[in-house]
Amino acid sequence: MKKLINDPATVLPDALAGFAAAHPGLAVDLTARVIARADRPGRPKVALVSGGGSGHEPLHAGFVGPGMLDAACPGEIFTSPVPDQVLTAIRTVEQGRGVLLVVKNYTGDVMNFRLAAELADEQGIEVRTVLVDDDVAVEDSTWTAGRRGTGATVLVEKAAGALAERGAGLDEVAALAARVNAASRSFAIALTAATVPAAGRPGFDLPEDAIEVGVGIHGEPGRRREPLRPARDLAAEVVDTILADHRALAAGDRLIALVNGLGATPLLELYLVFGEVHARLAGHGLEIARNLVGNYVTSLDMAGFSLTLAKADDELLDLWDAPVATPALHWS
Amino acid sequence: MKKLINDPATVLPDALAGFAAAHPGLAVDLTARVIARADRPGRPKVALVSGGGSGHEPLHAGFVGPGMLDAACPGEIFTSPVPDQVLTAIRTVEQGRGVLLVVKNYTGDVMNFRLAAELADEQGIEVRTVLVDDDVAVEDSTWTAGRRGTGATVLVEKAAGALAERGAGLDEVAALAARVNAASRSFAIALTAATVPAAGRPGFDLPEDAIEVGVGIHGEPGRRREPLRPARDLAAEVVDTILADHRALAAGDRLIALVNGLGATPLLELYLVFGEVHARLAGHGLEIARNLVGNYVTSLDMAGFSLTLAKADDELLDLWDAPVATPALHWS
Repeated sequence: MKKLINDPATVLPDALAGFAAAHPGLAVDLTARVIARADRPGRPKVALVSGGGSGHEPLHAGFVGPGMLDAACPGEIFTSPVPDQVLTAIRTVEQGRGVLLVVKNYTGDVMNFRLAAELADEQGIEVRTVLVDDDVAVEDSTWTAGRRGTGATVLVEKAAGALAERGAGLDEVAALAARVNAASRSFAIALTAATVPAAGRPGFDLPEDAIEVGVGIHGEPGRRREPLRPARDLAAEVVDTILADHRALAAGDRLIALVNGLGATPLLELYLVFGEVHARLAGHGLEIARNLVGNYVTSLDMAGFSLTLAKADDELLDLWDAPVATPALHWS
Repeated sequence: MKKLINDPATVLPDALAGFAAAHPGLAVDLTARVIARADRPGRPKVALVSGGGSGHEPLHAGFVGPGMLDAACPGEIFTSPVPDQVLTAIRTVEQGRGVLLVVKNYTGDVMNFRLAAELADEQGIEVRTVLVDDDVAVEDSTWTAGRRGTGATVLVEKAAGALAERGAGLDEVAALAARVNAASRSFAIALTAATVPAAGRPGFDLPEDAIEVGVGIHGEPGRRREPLRPARDLAAEVVDTILADHRALAAGDRLIALVNGLGATPLLELYLVFGEVHARLAGHGLEIARNLVGNYVTSLDMAGFSLTLAKADDELLDLWDAPVATPALHWS
């Protein structure tokens, strides 16, 4: 195992210390493991809190800031944050207008965020939860009942964050978040497996010429293994798989597309994949109205990519275009 | 070789097509291989043009936009752009106030940009060149006479881009660019070698437990090989090596620091390294006033990192903070 770490046991606290030093404009509680906006919004707003296992950076801490999340709580690598940690995040940023929890659909996350929500409720804090479950690869998996949550998390956090920033109420923000999740589908292909530092070796064995089609962001098995093929073929399969599942899409529709690197894939290759995705979608009469190409929801040092497609309407595009100022997404 | 490509022979055009599709706000000439700002500045300004071999993305195309480069011309992977291509870039964006070429110090780049500058001069276009040579690892290398140009390129392009945007003249912008380069030092460590698609195998052999200390961005040999050590030790060595070379630095000075991934290193690890760099510099009485942590000057799928430190004064920090709107750097 070759990693830039000090000790497999201290990767998270060591990396969090670096994150705090790199982003003095955010409030990082190294003991509670909560990253929060340090600026106070001009008027009370609905607070957005997310979190999950570490190893998916920049998700979630990289999306804390004006226009997106109010707080994030990272668990140990590929491990849910604990309920008390989530509760601390909630209490740190709630302003009396309620809190939306953005939770990726993994059993541990679902359970711990639910417990935190119950604790917050007992303290008189109104909480709603949106469960992100956009990965069409498998219906149930090693770590989930139902579909896994992946790239759509970025879209949900961006759109709901923009709506909350504009002053919308909790029910409205929660409904929008659910709507964005429902409009989104993802699918991933791995070229190599990730290595969890504490494990010290790759999470699965993949022969030199093989890829895992439909892989999860913790290396969960996908649909099958097959030989590596040209990027054009892989992009076509991923696009077509998503479209087959996404019944609401029809020719003429506009999309937000995320071509996401899983951690170890060069940007050059991600742009190449984006070009193939773009062409394939055009063949289906679908237009990419907005896009992201880069590493947003990673799986440590896994090579490969995921594609997320969301059906976009004027409201979603408007929320997407709204200003955002976080470490990983920034525009005005 | 596991890569998301169609054919080793078409990686650059395929990726450029994807880049063009992803960034409709930029003018991408797929035939000439020139990426240019599509917006016209409000008034004529000094134009900034850079370029170099591909495989270092987001460098340089990812830095084209308001506040930074006016045009970039990517060569084939690890290969300089040709003089005609550079000339086309110059002619595409020059507005009568002259052109600054930002050239990393590699023999091929130096020669081809010089030829392009001569051709431009014959056509009445005033051209200055800043040669970036910030890598302290080796004095001469496989591909250079003198030091190699690496991470400082981002700082030079950002600062000079901001000054040009403010309306400064060519001599002033060129002098600032040279000053930023002179204030910057870099050093890199590789955990794995990069694989050029056309070669099909890693550029050098590195045993499972070994690292290359002082590696270049094309996999050029560094100072030595040694066993992998904890990130804290590596950060200390890199910091101390740079400081030993950077005579102008003294306790109390402020820095701009770039902890840069070489392509396959997860963001989690880069933040961890940044934390160690930050602590080591604090021990020397040096303050990181601004920073970047992420993949900015990569080497395909090489794992590892580079550190760039620039001595910063009020003018440089002010130029650094100026608005920029490019695919890879964006703030307001």
